[in-house]
Amino acid sequence: MEPIDHQQFLNAAIAEAKKGLGEGGIPIGSVLVHQGKIIGSGHNKRVQNGSPVLHGEMDALENAGRQTAAVYRECTIYTTLSPCAMCSGAILLYGIPIVVVGENRTFMGEEELLRSRGVHVELLDSPECYEMMQSFIGDKPQLWNEDIGV
Amino acid sequence: MEPIDHQQFLNAAIAEAKKGLGEGGIPIGSVLVHQGKIIGSGHNKRVQNGSPVLHGEMDALENAGRQTAAVYRECTIYTTLSPCAMCSGAILLYGIPIVVVGENRTFMGEEELLRSRGVHVELLDSPECYEMMQSFIGDKPQLWNEDIGV
Repeated sequence: MEPIDHQQFLNAAIAEAKKGLGEGGIPIGSVLVHQGKIIGSGHNKRVQNGSPVLHGEMDALENAGRQTAAVYRECTIYTTLSPCAMCSGAILLYGIPIVVVGENRTFMGEEELLRSRGVHVELLDSPECYEMMQSFIGDKPQLWNEDIGV
Repeated sequence: MEPIDHQQFLNAAIAEAKKGLGEGGIPIGSVLVHQGKIIGSGHNKRVQNGSPVLHGEMDALENAGRQTAAVYRECTIYTTLSPCAMCSGAILLYGIPIVVVGENRTFMGEEELLRSRGVHVELLDSPECYEMMQSFIGDKPQLWNEDIGV
């Protein structure tokens, strides 16, 4: 088996994040990958849809549509930012076994909870993801706080 | 202060669940209550919208729209069924302090996690909620399993 090219999929999540930024939204993106193929891509839709539930990961899950448990159990979810409690909960609900995180310096989500439930969390510590969030938060701190319930 | 009439709000959540059932969906409903007033109502939309993220509680949050952290911290969320990991995660993300659960005999969600994080979880053990789910699961066991990632 070839080694998985995490960067390729993280780049797809970053592209989603940038799409969100271009729409005036919060630049967090995600892709859901099944057997080496992206089956759902998404980005935070708080601003665009007035949505408190469509974080990047949630939007990727939503866009992947209804899947069986068997599919989720063969998936990896990529996200530009460490997954919050809601997104981590969705990962636990569906039994997604691997989460690849762009960065967690801006925000440390529920990585510990995920690991305690047997999810493999891999951190890429991407400077691009970090700088994207730092720049965004510098511009719109209140919007960011709203997104994480602060 | 008058005692809170939990049953009144649970009834509103049950009405949402029944609406979902009438649409061919999964009968789980929820209302988000702020200072004694419902600010968001919702029901599971898996079938109706092909949505894996719009559980009852998530739909209620979505329909309440964007709220500040200050509002969420004064909210109570009512749900006909014990909240799964995703919905519990959303409750934790937004710091909703009180969750009123119709029943947890059909499905035990993340009540322990919620309590461990300081959320007050109140169980009403409603026969109406229980019977509604039992009847539904008897009819459509596969749809139910899909909804809880089994």
